[in-house]
Amino acid sequence: NKPTSSGYGNRGMSLEDDIMATNDYYLQAKMAVVHKKPTPVQIVNVDYPKRSAAVIKEAYFKQASTTDFNGVYRGLYVDFEAKETRNKNSFPLSNIHQHQIDHMKAVLQHGGVCFLIIKFTPLEEIYFLEGTKLFTFWDDQFQGGRKSIPYSYICEEGHLIPFHFQARVNYASVLDKLYF
Amino acid sequence: NKPTSSGYGNRGMSLEDDIMATNDYYLQAKMAVVHKKPTPVQIVNVDYPKRSAAVIKEAYFKQASTTDFNGVYRGLYVDFEAKETRNKNSFPLSNIHQHQIDHMKAVLQHGGVCFLIIKFTPLEEIYFLEGTKLFTFWDDQFQGGRKSIPYSYICEEGHLIPFHFQARVNYASVLDKLYF
Ligand SMILES: [Mg+2]
Ligand SMILES: [Mg+2]
Repeated sequence: NKPTSSGYGNRGMSLEDDIMATNDYYLQAKMAVVHKKPTPVQIVNVDYPKRSAAVIKEAYFKQASTTDFNGVYRGLYVDFEAKETRNKNSFPLSNIHQHQIDHMKAVLQHGGVCFLIIKFTPLEEIYFLEGTKLFTFWDDQFQGGRKSIPYSYICEEGHLIPFHFQARVNYASVLDKLYF
Repeated sequence: NKPTSSGYGNRGMSLEDDIMATNDYYLQAKMAVVHKKPTPVQIVNVDYPKRSAAVIKEAYFKQASTTDFNGVYRGLYVDFEAKETRNKNSFPLSNIHQHQIDHMKAVLQHGGVCFLIIKFTPLEEIYFLEGTKLFTFWDDQFQGGRKSIPYSYICEEGHLIPFHFQARVNYASVLDKLYF
């Protein structure tokens, strides 16, 4: 959960940066309200100097208990996690944590929409994978199933997210296709 | 946005703590998935010691660009801010920021539900105030209107949030009444 470095992928921006830019565009264009949650930090020690801003002097990264992004799109509660991989042939499930799966399953039970945005960095391809399809692979790995989702499966069962000049990771177009 | 001290109010917990406990209960009881967003922090300097966790050595509190809580309840996107006041006669609008109002208005436009949870600490009373009612007072203050919302208005036009042993700030009961 440390800040991702830029200069990743040939557009010079990380997947998270591109999604945040997309969300800014959606907000300005009055299409959606989706934000990235701040990185959770355990604050241990804070200095309050006179006449200047408080300085956090000691803090630690905490494991996030939910996914990275959530918000509202056309009345739908949407919730997703974004991950990039340098692999070409599969998406390793080790990129996801059990508590994120638990969170996504709970969201689904309450009528929200959950999905994963996966970028195969070497291919410059970004996919939308519905939560339910992720859960199948996730649960199977504990029954002797594979520890990754094949690229071929994601190509066929996921949805390629189109690039749009302003909505660089235009996931709303997939939501339109699936839910409206 | 600094961490609120406990020992506030005669139950010994801050309003935020009580709402977080309520959200935990809702999650366990499979009633809702609502979380508090982490405090946004601008990280400036991080130490990566060998064989131990990364330590944030310098960071600053950032202004939140949204509200504190959001999630999904019975298919609804819900979004709210929680505020306590030591006043008895009114809720000062200075507790709220313009960007939070902008965020709440945008959420409403996209079919989400927004509201304020206001605790009058000396009275031990907690109210649910719908976003639209807050906006009226907010906008009026720039037309020469008052800079606070009278307690009497909140009593009449808001909804007293009942205390429940496990759902200490049982705001879902108000959502049920208003939207279902
Ligand atoms: Mg992530
Ligand atoms: Mg607050």
